[in-house]
Amino acid sequence: PLQGRHDDRTLVFADLTREEYMKVQQYLLKQKDLAISTSQITKPSENFLFLIELSLPKKAEVLAYLDEKGSKPVREATAVVFHGAKSYIKEYVVGPLDNPTYHRDVTKERYQVDVPINARPVTIGEYALFFSFFETEIFSKLEKLLRESFGVDKKKTLNGFEQMPRGVRSGDRKTWVSFFRDMSGMYIHPVGFEILLNHESLNMSQWRIEKLLYNGKYFDSVEELQRAYDNGSVKKIVYKESPDYGSLKPRSKPLQIGPQQFYAEGARYSINNNHVLYLDWSFAFGLSSLTGMKVFDVRFKGERIAYELSVQEAMSVYGSVTPGMIITKFLDSSIGIGRFAHELVRGVDCPYEATYVDTYRYIDVPLPVRFRNSICIFEHNMGQPLRRHFADFFHNNFGGMANSALVFRTITAIGNYDYMWDFIFYQSGSVEVKVHATGYISSSYLLPGSKKHGHQVAENVLGNIHTHFVNFKVDLDVLGVKNVFQTKDMEYMNVSLPWMPDHYAMIPKLVEKQLKTEKEAALRYDTKTPRYLHIASNKTNRWGHQRSYRLQVYSFAGDHLPESEAEEKAMSWARYKVAVTKHKDVEQTSSSLYSQNNIWTPAVDFSKYIEDNESIEDEDLVAWVTTGFLHIPHAEDIPNTVTVGNGGGVLLRPHNYFDEDPSIHSADSVYFEPG
Amino acid sequence: PLQGRHDDRTLVFADLTREEYMKVQQYLLKQKDLAISTSQITKPSENFLFLIELSLPKKAEVLAYLDEKGSKPVREATAVVFHGAKSYIKEYVVGPLDNPTYHRDVTKERYQVDVPINARPVTIGEYALFFSFFETEIFSKLEKLLRESFGVDKKKTLNGFEQMPRGVRSGDRKTWVSFFRDMSGMYIHPVGFEILLNHESLNMSQWRIEKLLYNGKYFDSVEELQRAYDNGSVKKIVYKESPDYGSLKPRSKPLQIGPQQFYAEGARYSINNNHVLYLDWSFAFGLSSLTGMKVFDVRFKGERIAYELSVQEAMSVYGSVTPGMIITKFLDSSIGIGRFAHELVRGVDCPYEATYVDTYRYIDVPLPVRFRNSICIFEHNMGQPLRRHFADFFHNNFGGMANSALVFRTITAIGNYDYMWDFIFYQSGSVEVKVHATGYISSSYLLPGSKKHGHQVAENVLGNIHTHFVNFKVDLDVLGVKNVFQTKDMEYMNVSLPWMPDHYAMIPKLVEKQLKTEKEAALRYDTKTPRYLHIASNKTNRWGHQRSYRLQVYSFAGDHLPESEAEEKAMSWARYKVAVTKHKDVEQTSSSLYSQNNIWTPAVDFSKYIEDNESIEDEDLVAWVTTGFLHIPHAEDIPNTVTVGNGGGVLLRPHNYFDEDPSIHSADSVYFEPG
Ligand SMILES: [Ca+2]
Ligand SMILES: [Ca+2]
Ligand SMILES: [Ca+2]
Ligand SMILES: [Ca+2]
Ligand SMILES: [Cu+2]
Ligand SMILES: [Cu+2]
Repeated sequence: PLQGRHDDRTLVFADLTREEYMKVQQYLLKQKDLAISTSQITKPSENFLFLIELSLPKKAEVLAYLDEKGSKPVREATAVVFHGAKSYIKEYVVGPLDNPTYHRDVTKERYQVDVPINARPVTIGEYALFFSFFETEIFSKLEKLLRESFGVDKKKTLNGFEQMPRGVRSGDRKTWVSFFRDMSGMYIHPVGFEILLNHESLNMSQWRIEKLLYNGKYFDSVEELQRAYDNGSVKKIVYKESPDYGSLKPRSKPLQIGPQQFYAEGARYSINNNHVLYLDWSFAFGLSSLTGMKVFDVRFKGERIAYELSVQEAMSVYGSVTPGMIITKFLDSSIGIGRFAHELVRGVDCPYEATYVDTYRYIDVPLPVRFRNSICIFEHNMGQPLRRHFADFFHNNFGGMANSALVFRTITAIGNYDYMWDFIFYQSGSVEVKVHATGYISSSYLLPGSKKHGHQVAENVLGNIHTHFVNFKVDLDVLGVKNVFQTKDMEYMNVSLPWMPDHYAMIPKLVEKQLKTEKEAALRYDTKTPRYLHIASNKTNRWGHQRSYRLQVYSFAGDHLPESEAEEKAMSWARYKVAVTKHKDVEQTSSSLYSQNNIWTPAVDFSKYIEDNESIEDEDLVAWVTTGFLHIPHAEDIPNTVTVGNGGGVLLRPHNYFDEDPSIHSADSVYFEPG
Repeated sequence: PLQGRHDDRTLVFADLTREEYMKVQQYLLKQKDLAISTSQITKPSENFLFLIELSLPKKAEVLAYLDEKGSKPVREATAVVFHGAKSYIKEYVVGPLDNPTYHRDVTKERYQVDVPINARPVTIGEYALFFSFFETEIFSKLEKLLRESFGVDKKKTLNGFEQMPRGVRSGDRKTWVSFFRDMSGMYIHPVGFEILLNHESLNMSQWRIEKLLYNGKYFDSVEELQRAYDNGSVKKIVYKESPDYGSLKPRSKPLQIGPQQFYAEGARYSINNNHVLYLDWSFAFGLSSLTGMKVFDVRFKGERIAYELSVQEAMSVYGSVTPGMIITKFLDSSIGIGRFAHELVRGVDCPYEATYVDTYRYIDVPLPVRFRNSICIFEHNMGQPLRRHFADFFHNNFGGMANSALVFRTITAIGNYDYMWDFIFYQSGSVEVKVHATGYISSSYLLPGSKKHGHQVAENVLGNIHTHFVNFKVDLDVLGVKNVFQTKDMEYMNVSLPWMPDHYAMIPKLVEKQLKTEKEAALRYDTKTPRYLHIASNKTNRWGHQRSYRLQVYSFAGDHLPESEAEEKAMSWARYKVAVTKHKDVEQTSSSLYSQNNIWTPAVDFSKYIEDNESIEDEDLVAWVTTGFLHIPHAEDIPNTVTVGNGGGVLLRPHNYFDEDPSIHSADSVYFEPG
C-alpha cells in the first residue's frame, strides 16, 4: 500500500511525447525560411533537423509552480538544426506545446558564441556518404590488397570505427577510421588498416583521403599504398581467419537458474507517467537523448532534497601508437548518451520482475522513435542489513532491517561500451548515482611499440590504456535553494590529558569549513580534498547542527589530460572531483553536443562557470561530481569488460539533515527480545 | 547440479569441534603443574585457561598434503593460559588431536618476548570483580548523588563501558569506565560520570579509584566528589528521564514485505563441513574467536588463487574531551572479533533462503559454546548484469549475464558496533572481502569544548569523531607460491604524431614496476600509491603477460595515528594501504590478543615484519590490506549507523590471469540475435 500520491505537476520534467515531437517537427517544417529537411539522408550541405528535446523551463518558474501554486511553466522544446546551407548550427526553442506557434533562436543565449557547422556530430546522412566514399575510393581501388590481407570479398567486408576528435585544431574535420573484421565485437578485431578522411567540406566531392596506415606504415594516398603493396616495399599482412573470440554466445548450456527475486506482496513502488513513488521517496524522471538519465524534484518524506540529479558526460582519453587512437578522446554526450538507451533484457539487465518503461526520442531520425523497455525500475533486496544490532550485554535484543532499495536504471550502448546508469534510493534517506562500464573495449592492431600503451589481449590485438571520467550534476536543494558548501575532516591535535596534565596525546579533532567562492569550491583531483563534503542549509536540526546532505564520491579515476592540451577545455569538468557553482539556468550542462567535434573551441567550457568566482554562500548551489576509473585492459576484458570493479559514483547521504536515522520509521524494521 | 567435489583434506583448516575443545581442556586440566582453572570466575591471581583455538599447521606441510600427497599435518590446538599465579601469559600448542599427549610452550617462538600478565584482556572473572568493586566503592557510597543525578535506585542502575587502552604506558592497567543509562543502546546514553579504576594488581584488595569525573569536574576520590556534591561546589546534574531514542523497536507496523529471493531450481552451492563449492569456486573456511572470518585454499576452476584471506584487526581511534574517550583506541581482536559472531537473523542479516552454519568456540568460558547459525552462505542476485553488450550497428545481437555471486558472511557485535564481514565470490573470477559497520556509535556526555570532537546527536550526547581501520590478510598464491609484486599506472608522455611530426600531444602511457623489497612494497596511506597493484606469477598467459591478481582497495580511511605516539606500534599495519611481505608461518597475524592491553609494547608490531626488508621477488607473498573510513557521527547515526556508505574492502580481480573472461563459460550466459 503506497503512502504517497502521484503528482502530475512533475510532468514539467517529462520528455516529449511522440505527438509532441511530431508537432514540433511539423511546425518547423512549415517555416519555409528554415528550409529544413527531415530525411535521414539529408546531405551535409542541406539543413537538417537533427534533434528535438524537451527544453527545461527555468528553475524559478518550476519551483513557483510546484511550491507556490504559480502558473504552469510554458512547455517548450529545443530543436537543433544543422544549417548546412548556411554553415552554422542553430538551437531553437519551439513552443508552446502542444501547439507550437513560435520559435526562437537561443544559440547565442545558451553558448555566447555562434556554433560552426563542423562542430556537429556526424549524422546518418553523413555516414551514408562515408560508406559510398569508402566503396569508391578504397574498397574498389584496393580490392587485391583487401582480399589478400583481410579476406574482403563480396560476402565479407571490413567495418570502420571512427576515432575522435577529428583532427588537431578548430575547423578540422579529419577522421581517422580504423578498420575491423566484420565479426561480433568488431571493436576487438582490428586489422591494422586505418585511413585519415578529410571531410571538412560540406560537399563530398571535396572529401579526400589524406593518409593511410597499413601494417604500421603511412602512405599519402591509396595509389601510393597500392604501389608499395604491389612492389613489395611494405610488409604484407596475410589474411588468416580469426577465432570468434568476440562472440557473446554461451560456451556452456544452461544448467540451473540462479537466484531470482520476487515481490511476495506486490511492488512497493508505483510509476505514473514520469513520476515514481517508493515508500518515503518520490521523484520525476526524464531521459535526454544527449546526456541520458536525469531525475528531478527528488523528495523524501515529502521534502525536496534535490532539484536535479543527472548524467552530464562520459569521457575517455586513450593511449596508443596507432594514429586514430593516439589522439582519441571520446566525449559521449556529443554522440548522445541517452540516444543509445535500448531495450533492457529481463533477467540480465534488470530482474525479471522489474517494471520496464518505454521512452521516445527524436535524434538523427525522420520520425520520433519509441524505445521499448528502455528504463527499468525495481526494488531490490541488497542482500545485507541496512542496519542491525545484536545486544547480549546488559540487554538482550535484536533490531535491524534488510536493505531494500529502489533502483532506477538505464543502460546505454554507445558503440563499443555499455554504460549502466543507476539511481538508487535507500530507506535511510540516501540516494546513490552510479555508473558501471561493460561491453567491448576499444582496441588497436598490435604494432612495434604498442605495448607501451596497454596489454595484448588477443592475437595482434592491443587493449589500449584509457581513462574513464563521468560527470554528474547534483543540484541538491537542502530546505530550499539557499545553501552553503561545507567541508569536514579530521586533524590530530596535541592535547594535555586533563587528569594528568603533564602527559600529552594526539587526539582527532573535527575541522569544519564553509567555502566561500566557486574557485575555493572547485576541488581538484590532483590535490588532497577534505573527506566530508556537504551541501548544507543554515537551518539546523534538533541538535543545533546545520542540516546537510553529504556527497561521498566513489572513484578510481586516472590522471586527467594536462590543461596544456587544447582538447582539455572541452573536458575541464574532469579536473575536479567536486566543483560547486552557483546555479544558473544557462549553465544547464557541463558539456555539449558540440564538444566532440569542436573540442578545441567547445561551446561549453565548464571551467568558465567557475571563472567569475561567484559567492556560493546562501546561494542555489550545484555540485558537479566527477568519477571514473583508469582502465588498463587485460585478457579478462575479452570478450566484455565486467561491471564488477569497473565503476564509480556518488552517494548523497543525510548528515544532520534529520534528528535521527529515518529508517527507524520503516515498516521493514524488525525487533525481538527474549519473550 | 554441482560440478566440483568436496575435499575432506580442507579439514586441516577447520575450527576445533566441540569434542576437540573438550579433549584439549581435559588434557590441560590433567597437567597438575599448570594448575589451571576453567571456572568462569577464576580470579586474576589464579591460572585461567582463557582460549582454545585451532593451531594452523605450517603452510608448507599443508601444501604438501593438499598438492603432493604429503602426509596429513598433525592437528594441534593453541591454548592460552593466563598464569595469574606466575604473572605471565603462555601460549601452548597442544596435540595431537583427537587425543592430546603433549603440550609445548610456544610463546617465545611466536612473539620473541615474554607476555606479561597485564597484557591480558579483562576476563569475565575480572569483570565480576569490577561489578562487586563498583558496588561497594561507588554505588553504595554515592547513593544520594547517583539517585539525584542519574535516577539510580534499586530497580535502576548505571552500566559501565570501558575505554581503552587502560593507561598511558606499559604496565598500566587503569581503566576509565564511563557510565551509561541502563537503556537499549546504552552506548548513546552517557550520563557524564566516569571513573578511573586502577586494577593493575592481581589482588583486588589493592584496586583503587584514582579519579572521578562528574559533570566535567575531576575528583581524586569518591569522598572528595561526595563532599563537593554535598557542599554544592560542583554543579549538580539533575536526573531527568531520557526518551528511549536508542531503542530499535519499530515505530511503524509492517505494511507489505519487500522483495525476497528464492532459488527456483535449488541452491547452486554446497557446504560439507568447512568446505564450500559454488559453480567454479571452492574454498575452506574457519572462524577464529580472535580475528574472525577466514577462508583458505580458495580455488577457481580447480586452481588455487589464495591460500588464505582473513580478517586481522578492527581498530578505532577516538577524539573527545572526556577522559575515557580522549585516549580511546580500540583494537578489537584483543577482545575477540569472531568471539562475537552470534546468531544471524533470517531475512535481515542474510536472506531467508541462505544456509546457516553453526560454529563452536572456546574463549573465556568453562566449556565450549555452540553459536547457532553464526555464519550464513547464500547466492545472491546482485540486481545488475555482470557483463552485457547490445549491438545494433553492423551486427544485431545481445549477450550478457546476470551478476549472481556467492556471499559468505558473519556479523560480529563487539559491544556497540556490529561489523558485517563479507567474502563474495563472483563468476568472473573475482573475490571481494568487505566490511561494513552498523550498530551503535560510541558517545560521550556533552561538556564544554566537546563539539571540537564531533556533533551532538541527542540531548547532552556527543557522537565522537573516530577512525575505523580494518586490516585483512591476503595471501594470494598465483600459480604456486613464488610470486612478485607489480604495480601499474599511467603517465602522460609527450608524443609527436607520426603522420604530422610537428604536432605534439600528451598521450597516456602504461607504467609498470616490480617492487623488490618489503620496504618498497609498504605503500603508505599518506603517499600517492600506484593505481593498480598486482600479485603476479612469472608464468604468462596466452598473450605473453604475467598472470596476476589485482588488489583494488575501497577505502575512505581517515588519518592514521601519528607514529610519534607510543600506542601506534600496536596498530602500525594501518600506516599502509597495502604492505607486501614475505610469508612466514610465525607472521600469522598483523595484531595479537595482547595488543590492546599492552598497546605500548605490543606482542606483535606489524612494522617489524617489514623492517628486515626482505626480498619479495619470487617469494611467497602476503599482502596486508588496510581499509576503513573516517566517521564523523551525525544525527542519523541514532539509533544505529547504517551500512550504506560505511564500509570498505578489497576486490581481488584476475588480470591477465586467464586468456579471456572466465564468465563467458558460465552456464548463466544469455545470448540472442534476430531470428
Ligand atoms: Ca559562476
Ligand atoms: Ca541547489
Ligand atoms: Ca620480513
Ligand atoms: Ca602467497
Ligand atoms: Cu574502459
Ligand atoms: Cu564509527
